[in-house]
Amino acid sequence: MTDSVRDALRAEVVDDAFTLAAYPESETPFISSKDDAKDGLDDMEDALFDLHEMMFAAKERAVLLVLQGTDASGKNGTIKHVVRLVNPAGVKIASFGEPTEEEKQHHFLWRIKREVPGPGMLGVFDRSHYEDVLVPIAEQTLDDDTVAERFEEIRSFEADLVDRGVTVVKCLLHISYDEQRERFLRRLRRHDKRWKFRESDLDTRRLWDRYRLAYGRVVQETSTEDAPWYIVPSDHKWYRNWAVARLLIESWEDMDLSYPQPDLDLDALRAALEDPA
Amino acid sequence: MTDSVRDALRAEVVDDAFTLAAYPESETPFISSKDDAKDGLDDMEDALFDLHEMMFAAKERAVLLVLQGTDASGKNGTIKHVVRLVNPAGVKIASFGEPTEEEKQHHFLWRIKREVPGPGMLGVFDRSHYEDVLVPIAEQTLDDDTVAERFEEIRSFEADLVDRGVTVVKCLLHISYDEQRERFLRRLRRHDKRWKFRESDLDTRRLWDRYRLAYGRVVQETSTEDAPWYIVPSDHKWYRNWAVARLLIESWEDMDLSYPQPDLDLDALRAALEDPA
Repeated sequence: MTDSVRDALRAEVVDDAFTLAAYPESETPFISSKDDAKDGLDDMEDALFDLHEMMFAAKERAVLLVLQGTDASGKNGTIKHVVRLVNPAGVKIASFGEPTEEEKQHHFLWRIKREVPGPGMLGVFDRSHYEDVLVPIAEQTLDDDTVAERFEEIRSFEADLVDRGVTVVKCLLHISYDEQRERFLRRLRRHDKRWKFRESDLDTRRLWDRYRLAYGRVVQETSTEDAPWYIVPSDHKWYRNWAVARLLIESWEDMDLSYPQPDLDLDALRAALEDPA
Repeated sequence: MTDSVRDALRAEVVDDAFTLAAYPESETPFISSKDDAKDGLDDMEDALFDLHEMMFAAKERAVLLVLQGTDASGKNGTIKHVVRLVNPAGVKIASFGEPTEEEKQHHFLWRIKREVPGPGMLGVFDRSHYEDVLVPIAEQTLDDDTVAERFEEIRSFEADLVDRGVTVVKCLLHISYDEQRERFLRRLRRHDKRWKFRESDLDTRRLWDRYRLAYGRVVQETSTEDAPWYIVPSDHKWYRNWAVARLLIESWEDMDLSYPQPDLDLDALRAALEDPA
């Protein structure tokens, strides 16, 4: 058995087909309890910080963390609990809501491309270009040819990122219908969370099965060798945080990072510093 | 005596004159020891998070935290230790290095205006438009009229921000010549910090007194009623972190923030959620 979380969570597209039904939302590969996950995340803190800082210092590679999932699946929670562990100066977060009027005038990748992380950065997409295929598929608002074209453009956009040294980590935060209900009820109960709830969230929930199928289709069409999807079981928040942290660490470990060592004449510099003004 | 850190650290421009010489770099108003500062910062964590989250949720007001100071004054450290305490989804950090060729083609405020925080956001400037007056003054590369014009444009740019509901918190991270030497030596010693050191940092250090005077001039010209400068004694990192956190909290407290309470029919929503799909 592998101990790679990427291997364990990578979506398996078999014979060009993929279904989310095969992925339990509450399983916790490698992790036996909440404490176990929390200890694991604590243990990863230094490595997360250092690996990210090395990438930031070297300004060559980059990571794009794509967070997708239904309402209340934990996109913001992942940012709060995992992304917050690294140096914020090297992080660029972009949230993609419904396109604005200006955005609608442009190609659907226009607003996305403007937010691609530059060299050294960890970019985080809170929702992403995948909304532009998920919603039309689930709500049946685009014809098949246009959807197929968008898939092709997404694959080519991501392949181009990978070519430029950006590792694309696509996480589907996978929660169950029941867990979403619990989280919605909690939001309604808490005065400091209620603002996150919109009536339209219930409309989307009513299309649960159609969105499930749409997600399956998206994974099937866009889980490529270089930019695979990871299905992150997310009914347990502690597992989700642990798993996303591991996915980032494994991605950074692949980059063979180290702190740049500038070619400095250390003795001369030290002597110059000891001199009075 | 007031217990407002803003009142205590606000730059005092008297008779149109200001000099940094009157501000000790290692004093620690309100704080008696490193432990005291660390406990204070711990105690502020929840308030920082909540106040920022309320502003983020309401999407009306914004804060622009401007971090200025010489090399090694702790701009990045402040981001790491203070800014990291709030929800990263509501933070936008911009670092301004030497202008690129593209940026040089534009007005000096062009790249600045693109990074102004939108409603609800905490914007952080790691260096800022102030570089465009500090450097020319210290290095004597611009004539007086042009400098005066830039000051005028900066005052009007910031007044406009304040009119639009953006609180501008300008922090001069104030370190001594000796402390900078210690920090440079530490950077040279540590393999994970050496990448931050550039030979040109020493050239700037040689112009220490001229930069001091330039900072004095900048404060004198741009410390306005609505967008004052705070001189943050920064020889002690723990004091700097504590003080910047307090400045943010006091700014947010002025906004009378609360979590938005959307007008929802809670009973109906709960009933709808209990229904099967």
